Amino acid sequence: MDLEPFFKPKTVAVVGASRKPRKFGHVIFKNFVDSEFEGKVYPINPEADTILGLKAYPSVVDVPGELDLTVIAVPAPKVPSIVDDCVTKGVKAAVIISGGFKEIGGEGAKLESSIKKKIEGSSLRIIGPNCIGVYDPVNHVDTLFLPKYRLRRPKQGPIAFISQSGAFGAAVLDWATSQEIGISKFISIGNKVDVDEVDLLNYLAEDPHTKCVTLYVEGISRGRAFLDAAKKTLKNKPVVVLKGGMTKAGARATMSHTGSLAGSAQIYEGAFKGAGIIAAQTVDELFDYARALAYQPVPGSQKNVAIVTNGGGFGVISADEISRRGLGLAEFSSNTLDRLRANLPDYAIPHDPLDLVGDADVERYRMALDAVSSDPNVGIILVIVLLQTSFIESDVVDAISEASLASGKPMVVCTIGGDFTQMLVKMLEEDQIPAYPTPGRAVSAINSLIQYRKVQEDIERRNQQSQVNSP
Amino acid sequence: MDLEPFFKPKTVAVVGASRKPRKFGHVIFKNFVDSEFEGKVYPINPEADTILGLKAYPSVVDVPGELDLTVIAVPAPKVPSIVDDCVTKGVKAAVIISGGFKEIGGEGAKLESSIKKKIEGSSLRIIGPNCIGVYDPVNHVDTLFLPKYRLRRPKQGPIAFISQSGAFGAAVLDWATSQEIGISKFISIGNKVDVDEVDLLNYLAEDPHTKCVTLYVEGISRGRAFLDAAKKTLKNKPVVVLKGGMTKAGARATMSHTGSLAGSAQIYEGAFKGAGIIAAQTVDELFDYARALAYQPVPGSQKNVAIVTNGGGFGVISADEISRRGLGLAEFSSNTLDRLRANLPDYAIPHDPLDLVGDADVERYRMALDAVSSDPNVGIILVIVLLQTSFIESDVVDAISEASLASGKPMVVCTIGGDFTQMLVKMLEEDQIPAYPTPGRAVSAINSLIQYRKVQEDIERRNQQSQVNSP
Repeated sequence: MDLEPFFKPKTVAVVGASRKPRKFGHVIFKNFVDSEFEGKVYPINPEADTILGLKAYPSVVDVPGELDLTVIAVPAPKVPSIVDDCVTKGVKAAVIISGGFKEIGGEGAKLESSIKKKIEGSSLRIIGPNCIGVYDPVNHVDTLFLPKYRLRRPKQGPIAFISQSGAFGAAVLDWATSQEIGISKFISIGNKVDVDEVDLLNYLAEDPHTKCVTLYVEGISRGRAFLDAAKKTLKNKPVVVLKGGMTKAGARATMSHTGSLAGSAQIYEGAFKGAGIIAAQTVDELFDYARALAYQPVPGSQKNVAIVTNGGGFGVISADEISRRGLGLAEFSSNTLDRLRANLPDYAIPHDPLDLVGDADVERYRMALDAVSSDPNVGIILVIVLLQTSFIESDVVDAISEASLASGKPMVVCTIGGDFTQMLVKMLEEDQIPAYPTPGRAVSAINSLIQYRKVQEDIERRNQQSQVNSP
Repeated sequence: MDLEPFFKPKTVAVVGASRKPRKFGHVIFKNFVDSEFEGKVYPINPEADTILGLKAYPSVVDVPGELDLTVIAVPAPKVPSIVDDCVTKGVKAAVIISGGFKEIGGEGAKLESSIKKKIEGSSLRIIGPNCIGVYDPVNHVDTLFLPKYRLRRPKQGPIAFISQSGAFGAAVLDWATSQEIGISKFISIGNKVDVDEVDLLNYLAEDPHTKCVTLYVEGISRGRAFLDAAKKTLKNKPVVVLKGGMTKAGARATMSHTGSLAGSAQIYEGAFKGAGIIAAQTVDELFDYARALAYQPVPGSQKNVAIVTNGGGFGVISADEISRRGLGLAEFSSNTLDRLRANLPDYAIPHDPLDLVGDADVERYRMALDAVSSDPNVGIILVIVLLQTSFIESDVVDAISEASLASGKPMVVCTIGGDFTQMLVKMLEEDQIPAYPTPGRAVSAINSLIQYRKVQEDIERRNQQSQVNSP
């Protein structure tokens, strides 16, 4: 695979590595030196002998042996000649961090065209320019030039994230870290002089570390190829896209941001739906959906939702949210009803939403989750746990995780509160149970699971038809 | 005002005060003893001589002098005779925490009816039963029986919150504390045997500590009176309502939760709109709106929004969100354009959304916020600050606060990230600048400001018409 050198390079050169600690090139070089990156890393700087104790080379062509990846962080006018050097050296992949290209028009656009020409016919692949590059916690590739005390790096996990906007990507990575959300690969694609979302989607379709691909894009230039790549990916893993510039005002803004033609919202919406791509409307939704899809199993043919709660109000609001999205609550089977009646206190009424009442303890949750999740009339379970009472302890996380594993049915949690709640949310995250602060967000995430189930049903149906039709 | 004894009692008795630390009565009694509550508090317990060092009385009738407030936390069957005692004693207000009344039907419903009868014709007012009562940080009244290490108490602030659901209220208070959101008064109304949302709305309309009233309700029994109370309140402060049970499934759930008849969603929506009540659709929206409305000025007649950002992607998404809600971006005046052109780097294009570009520092924000907020074509300012770059420091909060105060125009912030971002969000909260993690939520909050402006315009128009029509 030709994109492998971006994510699994054995040798890396950083052009613009510097002894000045604030310089982007220095930060990137130091990221490699300080990390568990197992390959070799070379600083490229014609004016230095050594940087951070490592021998510096005047140019990539001077580096001994093969070079898989070059990261370029020097002013735009200097970039084309470095690209020449990379081609001469036979470098396989380059990430151009530098800005000052197409996004500023005029001279910048000319510089970018010249780079495009230089790599035609060569085997050099480029990510960028005008991007923050690649973060791969599996192989410890980190070209993010933003300091770690500001942009904290998330741990490894099942979600890949492609962002056309660097700042958007950085903000989301930082937030993901604080939420204990794991990332398989992050790629900021910037001006896309070469590698674009289509190439990356094709690559991530086969990436064993990625269970769900998320994208923030403003313009998609190769529409047909994108839909094909998405369809290929969707056989194995869901694709969630947040498209910027879906309104007139937004589209106008994309022009000056990434120089993208945003295109018609209707066309995008129709095309995404047709291909089975899950469209996020908001920033929240992008990762709300991704966490449900990456962590939880796809629902079976039974799609009704059981709500289990210790707060009646949140049960009511969740039932509202389920109805609004055209989803269904479950009718519990007589077995389940018998079991609930036998084990719940008199003042708890056994129906869906199942209100375990404010004095519910972990044992009551355990019993109810087991009863409900083994009910054939229940396809998906929404567990609401409000932790402000002292009846409930943190081992409710175990009860939820165990019921989730035992039933094989998707389970999502809704909980809101202060420090204690936040701790439990992180424990749930560890166990790959997605937790949401409001019923609306939890039910939206459930809806994305059902959407992906329907996508898979469509794929299955098409496969069967094509088998019937083939001789 | 007859509800004053609930919030400003000089003397409080706690019935069910106990020496057992887990008992609700004990927790409530201890809340008063440990707090800065300035009045007298009496433990009522026929089986104890002293509790926490204070002399215990067998009944409220035995307490010397006047009793303003009695908090009742004993099993339901014992409550009616205590209500008798309160009437005999001339107690002004009682909060009945105990559950086991209308919400369980049968005997419980009968007990509740008997209480209703007992207070007819008396001056005793009751909040509850089946509630968590009152939290008033101004006067240090705290009947919440949930331990402070689980349910943290928010600081004093401008938002009043009435909740029909105790657990919902507790979860929101705990969350509000972690977000540094201040509360003027919280009231959990439970089964509403006497005091209901109408009484409280009328009271809060006049409360000088409350700038915005929020409600979570499942059923409103006195519809006409509620709308009148809302209209009265809306002259001085906005009212935001989240109504549970707006769908069939949700309405069914309210029956077993609070025994409320949820009523038709269409009727509620129409009535709320007609009265000028701002309807929240989700849990997020309730406090997203309330913070904007409580902290920021009402917009003037100019309602166009200027977006100022250091991340182009978030600018694009915000422009989308503004369009989707039918709001408008601003056309900057030629003065503003000149000033921006003179002071921004070449690669930043001066139009709305105004992308200050990734290397924007606090000075650039200061200049841009001043230019934009003094532009007559700008009515509201959405400031997006992504803090993952080291160009920007925490004194951006000062720049935002100062521009907000100087312009007198509403300003809201959108920012997302990890620890550093969370710290800045709390600093903004201190300065009463509402901050939201996503463009969608920030723009929704802006929309609520515009909605309230329109409500005020309607009130103004009606007043003028009635003046014209009167002789």
